[in-house]
Amino acid sequence: MRARVITGLVGLSLVILALFWGEGLPFVVAVGLLALLGLGEFYHGCAGQGVRPVEWAGYPAAGLILLTAHPWGAARVGPLLEPLLTGLALAGLIGELGRAKRAPVADLGATLFGVFYAGWLFRYLILLRVQGAALLARVGGAPPAALAAPGGAPADGGAWLVLFVLCCTWACDTGAFFAGRAFGRRKLAPTLSPGKTVEGAVGGLLAALAMAALLGAALRMGMAAALLLGALAGVLGQVGDLCESAIKRDLGLKDFGSILPGHGGILDRFDSLLLTAPATYLLLRFWPGP
Amino acid sequence: MRARVITGLVGLSLVILALFWGEGLPFVVAVGLLALLGLGEFYHGCAGQGVRPVEWAGYPAAGLILLTAHPWGAARVGPLLEPLLTGLALAGLIGELGRAKRAPVADLGATLFGVFYAGWLFRYLILLRVQGAALLARVGGAPPAALAAPGGAPADGGAWLVLFVLCCTWACDTGAFFAGRAFGRRKLAPTLSPGKTVEGAVGGLLAALAMAALLGAALRMGMAAALLLGALAGVLGQVGDLCESAIKRDLGLKDFGSILPGHGGILDRFDSLLLTAPATYLLLRFWPGP
Repeated sequence: MRARVITGLVGLSLVILALFWGEGLPFVVAVGLLALLGLGEFYHGCAGQGVRPVEWAGYPAAGLILLTAHPWGAARVGPLLEPLLTGLALAGLIGELGRAKRAPVADLGATLFGVFYAGWLFRYLILLRVQGAALLARVGGAPPAALAAPGGAPADGGAWLVLFVLCCTWACDTGAFFAGRAFGRRKLAPTLSPGKTVEGAVGGLLAALAMAALLGAALRMGMAAALLLGALAGVLGQVGDLCESAIKRDLGLKDFGSILPGHGGILDRFDSLLLTAPATYLLLRFWPGP
Repeated sequence: MRARVITGLVGLSLVILALFWGEGLPFVVAVGLLALLGLGEFYHGCAGQGVRPVEWAGYPAAGLILLTAHPWGAARVGPLLEPLLTGLALAGLIGELGRAKRAPVADLGATLFGVFYAGWLFRYLILLRVQGAALLARVGGAPPAALAAPGGAPADGGAWLVLFVLCCTWACDTGAFFAGRAFGRRKLAPTLSPGKTVEGAVGGLLAALAMAALLGAALRMGMAAALLLGALAGVLGQVGDLCESAIKRDLGLKDFGSILPGHGGILDRFDSLLLTAPATYLLLRFWPGP
């Protein structure tokens, strides 16, 4: 528990620093690296089931997907993304022919699944950071007035939006943990994640809503939008956790790794965000606002 | 053999009709339907291995990918393609949680593999048809002068380019078959496709080159480009065949279906084109021409 709290505090400080420093470039680079590490955890985890992803095709595919989420990469590689991904997938399929023990559906399938789960979904964290100012403005939000420097970079809204999603998601995690410990009686999904309870899930949702209301007010977002985003984080955060549990059970793993002391691997720590980040991004992008 | 030839001739006539009629719209629609039927063959074939793709997410994903290959669909659904695909993939992952017997990596992996193999790759046949006039012009090609109506639609080049790819690919198939039967001695890939020989493969490549030279001259393409495209069809056509054999062996199938008398299923008939169409499209799109 102590290692968990220390890692969490150090991690959060680093995330805040990375989000606001240098227009968020450290955050974008860090997310890219975390995603590739997470992909490695997934591919490594497949080995236990005898599935051998075509890693040399999967890593560059995920790398390209992450790179083009940032305007710098989009301007340089964007038009080549589709042909390069097609080429990598075809090369992976053909490469499978050269293996002594061929299982194209399982091997390529796991390769693609990893690129989707650890590459494509992480991409939305980068999109939230780089497009966040405009997305936040769609629901009337803006960086807190007290903190906005007169000549501050307008993109800072992106840092605040990411912080909003992180805090709501982690409030949900924490709320679920403590509410489950205090009141938990009815099992939520016994075959999937035996420790989870209905009471914990409700506590997580309420914590996410409370955090969303608080931060939404600080960011001057419309309250309806803030609560909707909070509910999204409160529900999908827990669903993301269950998805990750199902994937780990499928692969026969307890944890994806141990890189984060007390938290497990990258995919163990970011399981909720992998669903809440895309959901937040897509909701705001299609929000019927200005 | 007789059913095979009759089906082939009827099919080729229908393809030519569909390619040139109504600016190729019947061809585009037919490719879309064939792709979805092929995806069904693949998903159906997975059942034998106990893999259960999330079909309700896979079919619409493939449908959207095919729809947006045509300018009509791209104008209407293009900007929504990425969010809809993300939503379908996430919904598929979450839907897997509701199944009694969960295997997210295998099930989602096969879903994605099918969308790639039978959706994404078929997409290039549509792209060749709708963008083909411009692609053909990149290598100096144009519809045959003798056949071009004075007021003919400029997009007809697309029909000719598809016909070029079809004829080269099928010349390769046929050349390999007869050369293999006449001279075949050394096995090409005994563990994958025991009937194939090195001599047959060489015959297939030569037939594709001959067809490319002939049609390239008729279409006034640069001879280097025509021969390069012929070589691409002659090599990748056979590799595509091997890929499909590997997938069938993986799934424990002899054929993907029997919808085309004498040819098997959609995926059995289009196995070569699934590689030659994307390769041709990508080569021409990045051809250093005008």
